[in-house]
Amino acid sequence: MRLSDLPTPCLVLDRQVLQRNLARMAHAAEAGNVALRPHMKTAKSMDVLKLAMAAGPGGGPRGITVSTLAEAEYVSGHGAMDMIYAVGITPQKLDQVAKLNAAGADIKVITDDVAMAARIAEHNNPPKVLIEIDCGEHRGGLEAEAARLLEIAAKLGPNLVGVLTHAGHSYAGRSAKAMAEIAEAERVAAVHAAERLRASGHEITIVSIGSSPTALAGRSFEGITEIRPGVYMFGDLFQAEIGTHGHGDIAVSALASVIGTRPDQGKILLDAGSIALSKDRSTADTAHDMGFGLIVDLKGQPSLGRSIVVKAYQEHGVVALDPSLPNFAPPIGSKLRILPNHVCLMAAAHDRYFVVNGDSEEVIAVWPRVCGW
Amino acid sequence: MRLSDLPTPCLVLDRQVLQRNLARMAHAAEAGNVALRPHMKTAKSMDVLKLAMAAGPGGGPRGITVSTLAEAEYVSGHGAMDMIYAVGITPQKLDQVAKLNAAGADIKVITDDVAMAARIAEHNNPPKVLIEIDCGEHRGGLEAEAARLLEIAAKLGPNLVGVLTHAGHSYAGRSAKAMAEIAEAERVAAVHAAERLRASGHEITIVSIGSSPTALAGRSFEGITEIRPGVYMFGDLFQAEIGTHGHGDIAVSALASVIGTRPDQGKILLDAGSIALSKDRSTADTAHDMGFGLIVDLKGQPSLGRSIVVKAYQEHGVVALDPSLPNFAPPIGSKLRILPNHVCLMAAAHDRYFVVNGDSEEVIAVWPRVCGW
Repeated sequence: MRLSDLPTPCLVLDRQVLQRNLARMAHAAEAGNVALRPHMKTAKSMDVLKLAMAAGPGGGPRGITVSTLAEAEYVSGHGAMDMIYAVGITPQKLDQVAKLNAAGADIKVITDDVAMAARIAEHNNPPKVLIEIDCGEHRGGLEAEAARLLEIAAKLGPNLVGVLTHAGHSYAGRSAKAMAEIAEAERVAAVHAAERLRASGHEITIVSIGSSPTALAGRSFEGITEIRPGVYMFGDLFQAEIGTHGHGDIAVSALASVIGTRPDQGKILLDAGSIALSKDRSTADTAHDMGFGLIVDLKGQPSLGRSIVVKAYQEHGVVALDPSLPNFAPPIGSKLRILPNHVCLMAAAHDRYFVVNGDSEEVIAVWPRVCGW
Repeated sequence: MRLSDLPTPCLVLDRQVLQRNLARMAHAAEAGNVALRPHMKTAKSMDVLKLAMAAGPGGGPRGITVSTLAEAEYVSGHGAMDMIYAVGITPQKLDQVAKLNAAGADIKVITDDVAMAARIAEHNNPPKVLIEIDCGEHRGGLEAEAARLLEIAAKLGPNLVGVLTHAGHSYAGRSAKAMAEIAEAERVAAVHAAERLRASGHEITIVSIGSSPTALAGRSFEGITEIRPGVYMFGDLFQAEIGTHGHGDIAVSALASVIGTRPDQGKILLDAGSIALSKDRSTADTAHDMGFGLIVDLKGQPSLGRSIVVKAYQEHGVVALDPSLPNFAPPIGSKLRILPNHVCLMAAAHDRYFVVNGDSEEVIAVWPRVCGW
């Protein structure tokens, strides 16, 4: 099977780029003397996870991070047991976690809520718990200095094993210096919270940080036990814009067919729209707005210059061609690829990867993804 | 099963509102003396389609519209055979259509391309074809006055059965007058193209128009044989803003659990983020920007005022509460519902509907959706 045989739209994964990205993060973790707990939220694939696990120093990471209980159930069904479910736990999900743990998984949960901590401690099969710390993103978590930290810890008692934070605001960083500062703030917040808890008599064995940008930008991981990047595996246009990796390091793209041409307007129409690409516009806030994605050719090469998807309807993508391609009107059915603004969201609509190796058009594998919740 | 028992995030469908919406469009079609060919792109559910088919005058519509071949295969597998696949056909998809048609389906395709028309005519099992007309949206299609219209028709020969246009630019309309003008332009374009083709000796039996706004705003359907609305079944915040329906007519919402509270900031955190809600921001261009969705309570009632999802991370939604709710900090695990900006995209991430009736919390059915391609 070759790329030109595939039904469109679909998702293409370049294993060569993936493995390069995995090796790079593994080396960064090794250099920082910190364990890597890769986040499944982006890949949602056991096949990708196996490569990620094999890529690390010393046999690679053992533990993983998940964003949904569907991911947790899927990976534990494949024998990967050591997990952190990195979204605030609820009573209902606590029961689901307890069930998976009773069947052999070791899913750790996070909370930043006093009442929820009490619920966990009262559960008949409580999981291990990390307290979520807010290091500046202001999404979930409490500040490392908050009085509630010790209150939550007291409720959790021996179920408490660690602290976790995520410098998601690193996505707003636009320079290496800014990234390094955010990474350091992330580290300091986690370590400070861990030290406060230890000073209160709690045994803290996991001090977990990490976004893909800060995992690479951090200069010190002193006091940190693990990092949890996810998007680094695939990369995307937004991460390239903020300097996490180069433009040649994007492993995933959408394959689409030309369904219309408007040479008079410098436009072509593709059968990949807002479901296949997502409506993510992350690059709108960067130096190079890529619309809903940047067009590359069937082999993944940037031969179409700055041709981008300027409009995304449900099943139609309108491409404004690079002005250097004035009369480009490929035959209907020609295939092109679209690099994602935000790969986690592009991938979300697709239930499998068609895997290629470098610029070969041969499909060497089909890897399923675990979508939904 | 009750709403409070459901895993979150998930999709809730209110059958009462759905049926009211279906009846309203059926009556509009009847009043306009035009057939209704409902679009499956929004609902992607045979259960919804059956209600839509039953809702029309005279036993309801027979034909349907699809946006993917996955929808086509699914509905033909359930015995609904008369379809228009309303996205420009490619050679590869032509083969898939021919296969489904050989198995009993009657899938009609659309094109605006001379070479593609020739490919269709040369096929050993060609489907019926409609020529796509551009009535002002400038997405696909050719202008009704284009010389190419007759050239394409000549290539298609007896495979040609109709013309099709879609006034998607009605979504930019902001008044009843503007909508009525766009609806009339849509009608005139389709009728004019059909008349040019008839004058050239082609038998044109289908003259197909329609978006949900123009289907309701059109004052005349003279010369039109059918309308193809889809989003009217469910409605959404954007359609309410542009006047297609009222705020109480939104049939689908996402159910989410509270996973964090920040009473000091007037915020709560939900477990529905940019996958469960989509990153659609349609209402940003209307009088009432609803962020990534408007919060209603578990029963679907607007008891939380203007509380909206202001930030959407992959699995987290940050809600800015209405200022009239200064100390609102519901317990972790409490459930709320989120009305969609654009229901087609919110629904896209979900593989089923949990169906309720009005403000009852009882789940009366679970209806599958056909996702992907």
